[in-house]
Amino acid sequence: MPAIDVAGEFETIERLLKPLAHPEYARGLTDDVAVLPSRSGFDLVLTQDAIVEGVHFLPDDPLGTVAQKLLRVNLSDLAAKGAEPFGYLLTCAWSPRCGWPERMAFADGLRADQKTFGVALMGGDTVSTPGPLTFSATLLGWAPKGRAVGRAGARSGDLLFVTGTIGDGKLGLQAVQNRLSLESERVAALAERYRLPSPRVEFIEAIRAHATASVDVSDGLIADVGRVALACGLAVDLDLEPLPLSAAADAWFQGRVDPEGALIDLATGGDDYEIAFAAPPAAEAALRREAERLHLRLTKLGRFVTGDGVTARWGGRPVAIAKPGFTHG
Amino acid sequence: MPAIDVAGEFETIERLLKPLAHPEYARGLTDDVAVLPSRSGFDLVLTQDAIVEGVHFLPDDPLGTVAQKLLRVNLSDLAAKGAEPFGYLLTCAWSPRCGWPERMAFADGLRADQKTFGVALMGGDTVSTPGPLTFSATLLGWAPKGRAVGRAGARSGDLLFVTGTIGDGKLGLQAVQNRLSLESERVAALAERYRLPSPRVEFIEAIRAHATASVDVSDGLIADVGRVALACGLAVDLDLEPLPLSAAADAWFQGRVDPEGALIDLATGGDDYEIAFAAPPAAEAALRREAERLHLRLTKLGRFVTGDGVTARWGGRPVAIAKPGFTHG
Repeated sequence: MPAIDVAGEFETIERLLKPLAHPEYARGLTDDVAVLPSRSGFDLVLTQDAIVEGVHFLPDDPLGTVAQKLLRVNLSDLAAKGAEPFGYLLTCAWSPRCGWPERMAFADGLRADQKTFGVALMGGDTVSTPGPLTFSATLLGWAPKGRAVGRAGARSGDLLFVTGTIGDGKLGLQAVQNRLSLESERVAALAERYRLPSPRVEFIEAIRAHATASVDVSDGLIADVGRVALACGLAVDLDLEPLPLSAAADAWFQGRVDPEGALIDLATGGDDYEIAFAAPPAAEAALRREAERLHLRLTKLGRFVTGDGVTARWGGRPVAIAKPGFTHG
Repeated sequence: MPAIDVAGEFETIERLLKPLAHPEYARGLTDDVAVLPSRSGFDLVLTQDAIVEGVHFLPDDPLGTVAQKLLRVNLSDLAAKGAEPFGYLLTCAWSPRCGWPERMAFADGLRADQKTFGVALMGGDTVSTPGPLTFSATLLGWAPKGRAVGRAGARSGDLLFVTGTIGDGKLGLQAVQNRLSLESERVAALAERYRLPSPRVEFIEAIRAHATASVDVSDGLIADVGRVALACGLAVDLDLEPLPLSAAADAWFQGRVDPEGALIDLATGGDDYEIAFAAPPAAEAALRREAERLHLRLTKLGRFVTGDGVTARWGGRPVAIAKPGFTHG
């Protein structure tokens, strides 16, 4: 489904956009967010993500869930930084097929998630396009001054944690494409997870309190953790065996003949919208208590060490990762 | 060139999006910008505008000027509010035709205008699209606390002013479409103005100091002034005779057999990116001095009075306006 991107998102950012970055507020364009001085005691944290029909969502996805997904992929970025969301700007480029019923469904999705996540619309633009439906949102949140968690900041010896479950995004895409042989309720659960990710906004305070570096898992766990490691100037030792799987993903996993390959697949798929973060060992007990209180799964997957790159292990042995992540281009 | 918008931008905002507006920061979605409390003594002013190939720019427009136009249409919104721009977030949805040369040209355009306007890139997203090139930018600026100029605020008796010249945007579109019979240097001047509007950022301090209500002229002078009148709960008496025309627009105007219709055409075309604003008569002298100092044309077009709607006059008589503005949908 990803459109071919002849130049590539990574290179475009690296070679063309980084030289244009704001010296104070852009975090070198390496951190998914911009951070500005704001009202007394707070920083303003901004993130912007776009979704395109046929690339990031399917033409037959209900427009209500498309609206929710747009907000949620952005809310996930804020959550990983420990920023409390409050508002957003929205650009809608409507394609000819979008009449009132489609726009109303989209607005209904926005309304539902505004209530769920405590955000409200602040402005934006609505235009027509002869092409595919395209939406872009700028989400805004507050973080206590100087406390927005970056990608850099982990120390050697810090542990690597991840919230929730990994791999549902990738399997969910296969589910909505009818490419998954599983019981129908499993397929439905994965499709639901693909259409409606759950940004971990409930974990914002724990992230602020304990994380030394943090990222939301959108391009694939290994790829995103690799970016954190790079920003920290460290290596990561990551154990695939405890990779947290949902019941549906586990059902899929049990049917695989190559468990190692299957786990690599899930750890390199995109669209999980969980938080992967580093925290010192001394914080583990407090993190576990907080996760338990929130009924949120929290898994220790490894450790930051001196060196560089991500070493993934299965059965104690390092495994080769051909492609650490998924890109929508 | 505008794509048909089956539901319409105005109705989409009015019926579907306004109910979702943030109670404090959105200004009811009627003011082109959001305004947030920010660092001590300042408000943060945000605006977001998108442009779509084949709708807001032409497929053969150079990508450098497309990048500049994207920034400038947003800078124009900030200037009209009296907000000093400093940064932006950018979403690029690249179509398959955009390889390195196109992206580099786009980045060169950004770089040039970053220098011209003192802004820098703070973040965003870059994705692929199978459809037309689509760009969205969120521009950020500061205004002294409580001093961002709104659409509402004019008092009966305030004068209506406009910066620069009106009608070049509309004629410029005809120029780039080769639909204009004028000397080639006139056509070139108008095409240039269409591709590279000049947001009146130099007038920001004067706007802050004197304007009681303000808007940027993007959908057509009459339509945009009408929105200000509505927000102020007033009517506007607008004289078409002093409508400020560029040399090229004047050359076009001199060739018309129906001067009244020609002026209405220009006053209802879009894409001017000038500032139309209200100011009390006592401020006129100071405004003229400041405009003169900046070599910026400033024209008094009328007056805000009790009532509602815009009455445009030509030769002292009210003229009928069939369609007050242009919409890209």
